[in-house]
Amino acid sequence: MVLRYFVQLSYKGTHYHGWQIQPNAISVQEVLNKAFSTILRQKTELTGAGRTDTGVHASFFVAHFDTNEPIADIEKIFFSLNNLLPFDIALQKIYEVDENMHARFSAKEREYQYFIINEKNPFRLETSYYLHRKLNVDAMNAASQILFEYSDFTSFSKLHTDVQTNICTIYKAFWSSKGSELIFTISADRFLRNMVRAIVGSLVDVGLGKSDEKHFREIIESKNRSNAGFSVPARGLFLTNVIY
Amino acid sequence: MVLRYFVQLSYKGTHYHGWQIQPNAISVQEVLNKAFSTILRQKTELTGAGRTDTGVHASFFVAHFDTNEPIADIEKIFFSLNNLLPFDIALQKIYEVDENMHARFSAKEREYQYFIINEKNPFRLETSYYLHRKLNVDAMNAASQILFEYSDFTSFSKLHTDVQTNICTIYKAFWSSKGSELIFTISADRFLRNMVRAIVGSLVDVGLGKSDEKHFREIIESKNRSNAGFSVPARGLFLTNVIY
Repeated sequence: MVLRYFVQLSYKGTHYHGWQIQPNAISVQEVLNKAFSTILRQKTELTGAGRTDTGVHASFFVAHFDTNEPIADIEKIFFSLNNLLPFDIALQKIYEVDENMHARFSAKEREYQYFIINEKNPFRLETSYYLHRKLNVDAMNAASQILFEYSDFTSFSKLHTDVQTNICTIYKAFWSSKGSELIFTISADRFLRNMVRAIVGSLVDVGLGKSDEKHFREIIESKNRSNAGFSVPARGLFLTNVIY
Repeated sequence: MVLRYFVQLSYKGTHYHGWQIQPNAISVQEVLNKAFSTILRQKTELTGAGRTDTGVHASFFVAHFDTNEPIADIEKIFFSLNNLLPFDIALQKIYEVDENMHARFSAKEREYQYFIINEKNPFRLETSYYLHRKLNVDAMNAASQILFEYSDFTSFSKLHTDVQTNICTIYKAFWSSKGSELIFTISADRFLRNMVRAIVGSLVDVGLGKSDEKHFREIIESKNRSNAGFSVPARGLFLTNVIY
């Protein structure tokens, strides 16, 4: 019998080389696999809802793992795991799901937020991009709406990845502000590698007056990554939701 | 001619041995003195509104400095200073004041906030106290009101300090909650060393049911520091306002 559990968690990505296990670098997945294997006393591997790049954070992330026998006291396991895990990874919930549910393949929508701060803030060094420039938010918002007209985002994907298709359906894309903080919210059925940071960089160019709606549209239509704007730093990016 | 300027700033205290200059340890004041002396091209010393202990933060701090000649372009100096200062110290404003104004002696009220989080949060390690225990907030709030009946807070001050009087007038003292976060706000004309953290520790004991209103009152009346509760960690404490 195989039992499947979903884990809802958050992590500060600053000290990790992203979610995905890789040789010679510490990843969130590796740290979780070790902790779960220790506490559950059997080799346990977590499958994540997606990958996040080096330095990217998740205020909401979902992963699944399988066991051969039911976990008797989930509450107890949950506390033991949170005690064992380092401060920058925190579990919010563990719950059993149908064995057909898959953290990655069953996810219908993923949401990211990107945080730009306009004033130096000692408390946000690792969780925002400090850009002390005047940005035209209306222009950035107008350009973001163009994203809804397209589904091939090759222009915003990292070159030479092994992904088979660059087609994504965008559900949300807008800028909002809170004090001296600017927040870009974007959700889609899936994201290409580096996509959010390249979109934000291209929209920041619009906000700075270096680019405009017409140029933003040309970037998308060109399907050429080298036309897109700079990639904004990973530290401002948060995975904020995964919907099943 | 002496011209006096006020500086409004914020800092993350994690990497500093408090505000005050001291031998063999890095302080916020020392870093600011160096930066101001460099940018103003004359030896400049800042006087702070008060001292904060090692690891304590300030989201709002005020200091003053004097010059012999007016600063021609404050805006420019302000940006140069923020560029030179490390990421964890940020200036918000520099403005000229009457030469009788003093950052410390003219301050009428200082406000602190203490942050306790009840759920593990990867983003708040350095800026809160994680206490995974059920706290009775109503009891903590009722006990805080007792503070208004007293003015001698010897019980909450660090022993063997050189302060001449332990008399303070409390203006605000209450707990509020925001999600899984508990916030204690306290303001007074002045604070004794370690006072806020000892008060919070004693109130947490009330919240845990280890103490009660009667005992909290006895602590204050005893005027003996060894009766008070534990000192909560510095990382949850913020100086949040100084009123002139």
